[in-house]
Amino acid sequence: MRFKVVVAYDGSSFHGWQTQHKNNSVQEAIEKVLSDIHQSTIAIVASGRTDSKVHALKQVFHFDSDLDISESQLVLALNSQLPKTIRIRSAEIVHNDFHARFDATGKRYGYYLSNDTKNPFIHNYMDIDFYPLDLELMQEAATIFLGTHDFTSFTSAKINPNKSKIKTITNFEISKEDDVTKFIIEGDGFLRYMVRMIVQTVILVGKKKLSVEYVKEMLDAKDKHLCSYKANPSGLYLEDVFYK
Amino acid sequence: MRFKVVVAYDGSSFHGWQTQHKNNSVQEAIEKVLSDIHQSTIAIVASGRTDSKVHALKQVFHFDSDLDISESQLVLALNSQLPKTIRIRSAEIVHNDFHARFDATGKRYGYYLSNDTKNPFIHNYMDIDFYPLDLELMQEAATIFLGTHDFTSFTSAKINPNKSKIKTITNFEISKEDDVTKFIIEGDGFLRYMVRMIVQTVILVGKKKLSVEYVKEMLDAKDKHLCSYKANPSGLYLEDVFYK
Repeated sequence: MRFKVVVAYDGSSFHGWQTQHKNNSVQEAIEKVLSDIHQSTIAIVASGRTDSKVHALKQVFHFDSDLDISESQLVLALNSQLPKTIRIRSAEIVHNDFHARFDATGKRYGYYLSNDTKNPFIHNYMDIDFYPLDLELMQEAATIFLGTHDFTSFTSAKINPNKSKIKTITNFEISKEDDVTKFIIEGDGFLRYMVRMIVQTVILVGKKKLSVEYVKEMLDAKDKHLCSYKANPSGLYLEDVFYK
Repeated sequence: MRFKVVVAYDGSSFHGWQTQHKNNSVQEAIEKVLSDIHQSTIAIVASGRTDSKVHALKQVFHFDSDLDISESQLVLALNSQLPKTIRIRSAEIVHNDFHARFDATGKRYGYYLSNDTKNPFIHNYMDIDFYPLDLELMQEAATIFLGTHDFTSFTSAKINPNKSKIKTITNFEISKEDDVTKFIIEGDGFLRYMVRMIVQTVILVGKKKLSVEYVKEMLDAKDKHLCSYKANPSGLYLEDVFYK
């Protein structure tokens, strides 16, 4: 039977969801415990990767099991053996054709930037910058990304050239509460580095180092060498993955 | 001239304020940067020590400087060189007879215990326990500690036998908000492990593993071998140090 599992993790301890270097990725930590429980090699499939240091409130993965184990027993068994920086939130038995990546219809990311440079507790959990940001300018820049666009200018230059760069951003909200500026961005999918490149571009508009007009030109240019800005991964959270 | 400095630190990265092992204490990290700035060895004197993994929102220390440096320049110079998990909140030029330890008239500690066992972000910053706690019983047990007592039963058995064990607890409040039980304890001073031993004893009352009456007997007994309970240091914060 197939399990759909929701997991939260503190990315500061890991080299991302999946690593080439075969050490200390979230995926490996989970596969190791699942393989121990099953006494055979178990591979898991996530909704997508997250970069090194990026956090998740709700990442989703699936795997197949032949164990006679209930949903709640699986959650307890995993959490008792996983590092405390990886916590299984829930597990659900699903149809055998459920696929965590192909069935995902959208994702929500959150990005948090604090002005409080004298707080010793947040440096792994937020971007920290004392520089003042113009909230209205950032909100104006955010609207440029809404809708369906070719995001070639806002992804890794190394990405497969045959892969479609067309994505739809359905929501992009920026707000400020006390010391923290919060960016919420939702879409049907995101290319590699796309969220971090968009967010950092918008932050530079907030610092008046880029104009709103120039951001529109960047997007329209579909030039993979145009954007060299990428937000600090410590501030980024995969907040939810949506399914039909 | 003498500086009084307020510092916050994330204790999860350090072996306490001061360590015997000469590695990775908060005090050493600060003394190293101050000595670099002064190009001579600088020693600092804190209001008191904190155990390994214990945090501080406001720890206070003093030191003497012959540099021509302003209060705000000192804060900037220290924060630019210290690890991000140690942040200087403020610095103030004080009388040469100010003493961070001897002049302290009281301290406030906070202790935080969360029921949310599925949160991967808090394990260095709170105690985590799913076990239900009886808040009213804990509040009743807390009143036993209020006032002036001989706290021999609630400190390290290794403490200097000639040191007075008489301390006054002026406030001990326990409250719950969402998943987090918060303990606030204030007094004129605290012996080694005293806060952690009192808090864990109260938690065991909340779990109905100790009775309120037994806690009173423990305190009255003045027996240094009676209490073997000590709360998780990750949940403890030195929140303030008071001066006249």
